Amino acid sequence: MDTFFHPASIAVVGASDRRGGYQIIKNLLYGYGGAIYPVNPFHTEIQGIPCFSYIEDIPCDVDMAIIFVPAALVPSALEGCARKGVSRVMIQSAGFAEVGDEGKTIQDRCMVIAKESGIRIWGPNCMGLVDVPRRHFFTFMSPRIYEDGLIPGRISLIAQSGMLSAAFLADLMSRKTIGIGKVCSIGNKADLDECDLLEYLLEDTETDVVALYLESTSRGRLFAKIAAGATKPIVVLKGGRSKKGARAAMSHTSSLSGNSRLLDGVLQMSGVILANDFHQMIDLARTLAMIPDVTPACRVAILTFSGGAGILSCDLLEKHGFNITQLSESTKRALGGIFPDWMPVANPVDLYPAMELQGRVSAYDKAISIVLEDPNVDVLLVHYVEGLADEILDLNALKKKTDSAGKAVLFWLIGRRESTRLFRCEAQRCGIPVYGEIFRAVECLSAAGRFQRREGVEDIIDGNTVPLSEYSQKEFAFRSTGERIWDEYDSKRLLAEWHIPVVEDKLVDTLSEAEKVAGDIGFPVVLKGLIPGQVHKTESGLVHLGIATRMELKDTYQKIQKKLEGRGRILIQRQVETDYELIVGFIRDDQFGPCIMFGLGGVLSEFQPDVVFALAPLKESEALELISSIRGSRLLQGFRGMAPLKREFVAQILVNLGNLGTAYSQIQQVDINPVVVNAGFPLAVDAAIILKSVKLRHENKFHA
Amino acid sequence: MDTFFHPASIAVVGASDRRGGYQIIKNLLYGYGGAIYPVNPFHTEIQGIPCFSYIEDIPCDVDMAIIFVPAALVPSALEGCARKGVSRVMIQSAGFAEVGDEGKTIQDRCMVIAKESGIRIWGPNCMGLVDVPRRHFFTFMSPRIYEDGLIPGRISLIAQSGMLSAAFLADLMSRKTIGIGKVCSIGNKADLDECDLLEYLLEDTETDVVALYLESTSRGRLFAKIAAGATKPIVVLKGGRSKKGARAAMSHTSSLSGNSRLLDGVLQMSGVILANDFHQMIDLARTLAMIPDVTPACRVAILTFSGGAGILSCDLLEKHGFNITQLSESTKRALGGIFPDWMPVANPVDLYPAMELQGRVSAYDKAISIVLEDPNVDVLLVHYVEGLADEILDLNALKKKTDSAGKAVLFWLIGRRESTRLFRCEAQRCGIPVYGEIFRAVECLSAAGRFQRREGVEDIIDGNTVPLSEYSQKEFAFRSTGERIWDEYDSKRLLAEWHIPVVEDKLVDTLSEAEKVAGDIGFPVVLKGLIPGQVHKTESGLVHLGIATRMELKDTYQKIQKKLEGRGRILIQRQVETDYELIVGFIRDDQFGPCIMFGLGGVLSEFQPDVVFALAPLKESEALELISSIRGSRLLQGFRGMAPLKREFVAQILVNLGNLGTAYSQIQQVDINPVVVNAGFPLAVDAAIILKSVKLRHENKFHA
Repeated sequence: MDTFFHPASIAVVGASDRRGGYQIIKNLLYGYGGAIYPVNPFHTEIQGIPCFSYIEDIPCDVDMAIIFVPAALVPSALEGCARKGVSRVMIQSAGFAEVGDEGKTIQDRCMVIAKESGIRIWGPNCMGLVDVPRRHFFTFMSPRIYEDGLIPGRISLIAQSGMLSAAFLADLMSRKTIGIGKVCSIGNKADLDECDLLEYLLEDTETDVVALYLESTSRGRLFAKIAAGATKPIVVLKGGRSKKGARAAMSHTSSLSGNSRLLDGVLQMSGVILANDFHQMIDLARTLAMIPDVTPACRVAILTFSGGAGILSCDLLEKHGFNITQLSESTKRALGGIFPDWMPVANPVDLYPAMELQGRVSAYDKAISIVLEDPNVDVLLVHYVEGLADEILDLNALKKKTDSAGKAVLFWLIGRRESTRLFRCEAQRCGIPVYGEIFRAVECLSAAGRFQRREGVEDIIDGNTVPLSEYSQKEFAFRSTGERIWDEYDSKRLLAEWHIPVVEDKLVDTLSEAEKVAGDIGFPVVLKGLIPGQVHKTESGLVHLGIATRMELKDTYQKIQKKLEGRGRILIQRQVETDYELIVGFIRDDQFGPCIMFGLGGVLSEFQPDVVFALAPLKESEALELISSIRGSRLLQGFRGMAPLKREFVAQILVNLGNLGTAYSQIQQVDINPVVVNAGFPLAVDAAIILKSVKLRHENKFHA
Repeated sequence: MDTFFHPASIAVVGASDRRGGYQIIKNLLYGYGGAIYPVNPFHTEIQGIPCFSYIEDIPCDVDMAIIFVPAALVPSALEGCARKGVSRVMIQSAGFAEVGDEGKTIQDRCMVIAKESGIRIWGPNCMGLVDVPRRHFFTFMSPRIYEDGLIPGRISLIAQSGMLSAAFLADLMSRKTIGIGKVCSIGNKADLDECDLLEYLLEDTETDVVALYLESTSRGRLFAKIAAGATKPIVVLKGGRSKKGARAAMSHTSSLSGNSRLLDGVLQMSGVILANDFHQMIDLARTLAMIPDVTPACRVAILTFSGGAGILSCDLLEKHGFNITQLSESTKRALGGIFPDWMPVANPVDLYPAMELQGRVSAYDKAISIVLEDPNVDVLLVHYVEGLADEILDLNALKKKTDSAGKAVLFWLIGRRESTRLFRCEAQRCGIPVYGEIFRAVECLSAAGRFQRREGVEDIIDGNTVPLSEYSQKEFAFRSTGERIWDEYDSKRLLAEWHIPVVEDKLVDTLSEAEKVAGDIGFPVVLKGLIPGQVHKTESGLVHLGIATRMELKDTYQKIQKKLEGRGRILIQRQVETDYELIVGFIRDDQFGPCIMFGLGGVLSEFQPDVVFALAPLKESEALELISSIRGSRLLQGFRGMAPLKREFVAQILVNLGNLGTAYSQIQQVDINPVVVNAGFPLAVDAAIILKSVKLRHENKFHA
């Protein structure tokens, strides 16, 4: 991988005297110090550099080739590289898998050539690589990007979309308010993908934060595992969430877009910060690079020029769970010294009266110093206006004060355009994050609070916690009923074997048998008709709850028997008292492999789904974390006088289900819906196991 | 009011040769054409204008005075104005109610003087008034605000916070990407408030959109009524939502901050667009000024330079309920003509391959023209990069094309800083909205979709729908039990009289009576102990549901009897079958007066409250609109095979409760919780009526 980033020599196949073919050479000449070999049979020299007709004509070793010829010509260019012994090739041309079957065929052909000759491919359909600190522009993008100058930094980007990475880089560089390290445009990812690059950048000593824009995650499980083991913050912006979006993703990058809730859930459990727009992604990355070590419980003080903006900041901070601190008495006394007598001092601190008295910069300087010393303050949010006066706040000194106090400071800045730009540039140099909108400052602080710096994990590869041999595939096949969708009874039997608590029930063949069982388990009972292969029992009128008498039982039995028309079987079940319902599931996802789902069920889930996902199998500690990560988590502490959920019992269900699902590779999905909670104890009341089929492979939806 | 905006002469009491007192005169000289009279006993002239010692010394009529002297001197300055016969005074000094009791006393004194002399007051503690098109700066803010030049426009602002309006105006003016009409900084609103100014600006022929930043709404009900009658879009950013925020509001603007859910709900029902940050407020206003007539169901097409950004836009648009349109076949054919052959065309349209073929601007020009002609397209979202090439898109021609097609176009723009600024300025001139972030473009489009241009309503004053005489205060007093909190039984009797359906129940004095009633209404039954003045029956163990047998009834009766300890009474009630629960309430709010609340109840509300508010009394059509406006509205269509809600029955409950609560001014709150829904029919199962008390007046919380 290092060769792509630091090649000693580069051949440019498709170098020319105009457009992209011209720009690649121009960009290389800007800062790249190695040997450059243009290749084009119609030129003898390009921009003063001798040009070769074929790559094999180059008399020296070539570390890397950039190919920029029409797609149809790329396979033969690649063969040339193979003959020349070039082991790293960036294909920057478009017209491959992203445009349909024809392009896909060309791309496949390229991959065959690459595999045979041991070439690693970057692209195709990409903008290549930019290394800002080294001024390496291995790309055909417009040289205007660096005309405004470059601000090197320690945030690196991986972007699937080429044009976007170019436009975005130009946007960021011209503002000079963020420092960038490496920008990797990875396009169709025919060979190298985001996992390879993420691993590289996580090891890269010049990168502190990695931000990724992804349209697909072809190796989602590996990505999640790499992220879970990362010691640097990772920010991901993922396109292709919506239905329509997913369709567009298919036509654009020829890759399927996963179930977004699963993807979001798994990534979040892996410690990834999720973004939802481009500049927000950069603001998140910038924040994590500058203030990576705040906690979600940090206590925030606000210095403002406007009481109103202070109030609004409180609103937003509290919405994100932050603690608007009470200033200590000594802080209030000290602040009192710079305020007019009539002004009561409290957090948020409205500095305006002090500014009138002390002058603007002096008031800020003094107030910031005082508040930073307050033991009740962890983070200081400063509201500032620039451009209405001449004095300048000494940001360098401010940053030093902040660091020596072991605290974090961030700015909301408004004011005249040119003045605010200069302020932002200076703040960027000093490492102080500045935001143009309050909500953005707060959401970035919140992301920084969520980021937990980890030690890194030992093994990226799955350590399966189940002794697979115990449950041989043969045994499983033997158990199978032949149906792809197991009925409730069979499903729950298997769950019970894996120590998942299921409700007491019994199959019955006759009414008198049903009456006997009802007598044994006690009224009220539940009667269900099970039809092979059918999951929607309730909608089919095959589920009858709360049967209170023998008479009712008889009626219902006959009703179900009639509906069954000789198929299926009848199940009688204890009626369970229910405080509320949960849903637990297993899904074998195309990209993420075995995953566990947990969430609120029943009526609670009708409002809006509240489910979370994690890779399976999971440890008990991971299961407990998963349980706590639903939005409605506080409901699990009990509401309306109900007992708190016995989380360790639910965690055991998640662990056991994860083991079960992972153990049997034939299982596509398991639904346990509902898991009823009564007096805090969970109990599986209905379940369905669904085996894999060819048809199901691309239809990763839960059947409720 | 017009005198404040167009005075023929202005006296400046507190004009001086430095700071604010200097700046007021300098600002007036910038563009104000009327007579200017500085007043200050220590100067004979200021900036070349003769200065008077006292306002009474001015030999001519004075239309308006601006007072800018320390707070303690303001009352005597005001008396001078009274003697001089000045009828309009802007007090721009600070140090009044916003700083505590002492300042409040001064402010009260000023109001007494004003009332006695018929003076209308603007402020105090404000920045005054700016009229950008007229270059009127009636303010002490820094002249730097207009140093970058002014962009006149038709968006007017009302801001409670003074410094913020100055800083913000400087910010907006220096960017030159928005045109502003009037900016009114209203400060403490001792006399003139947001209602007065909103009414004025809604009539102002130079204003198309009004944006307000408010920290309090002292006449909320009137504000909501004015908004409901407005024919122009109104955007409101409200500070002081959170608990801490509300506390800060008290110390800052000496006004209480209302229950934010009620405020948000009532304003939204009045057609107000709510903002949550400063720049967002402006973006919303800008959008509504430029594209006010889109619908929530509009069909959107996307032109992009990056498939990835197109996908992300789809995601965001779909999240806001927009329809990503299918392009017509003829559009696809026409677009095919500018694309390379290999490129399939669909919405979002990834223009990059066409740009390679046609050149950037030509590709955009052609594609925009083609898509605007598509009958399936209402709104076009264009992604654009500026600064990587020299050609310029003709925005003026584009806007003409858009208008003649009767459609709307908006841009997401990234690129090099200076180039994007020029683009934005040009777009502003042409009336095309441009955004720096996709989510912002989408949320603004969504707001524009929500805005319904109305005809205006006839009467701003409450048209009470109840013949009040029917229910005399005397009769009510007679009914009253003497308790401030009526028990469930009494409460429901009153509701029943107002035709609100309540569950069948009966008070019982003895166990045998209870047994008889249970026999009549049939098991299972509910038994409740009612204690005078107590609302939390369930938590006190006084509610027992599902009593199935005489034996159980006896046990429970004795249990409750023991708990009551001789107080209160026992109520027996039919056990109601429940599909789900609603909550309905009435509240007499300090700022908004009688209001109705409607929302999801029971377990559905545990997850996160989903309640909406409207002014009471309401018409049936308003009640139906309120019912539809909860977030979980689709649940009311029925879920899990349940019948759809009979909305007209619920609407009747809301109308009747509104009439009841409005009729009896003694009533502070009514809770009907729950309203049980079974087979679509609503039934009040528990209720509490709470009368006013001194203590309750500032504690507008519902007791669940």
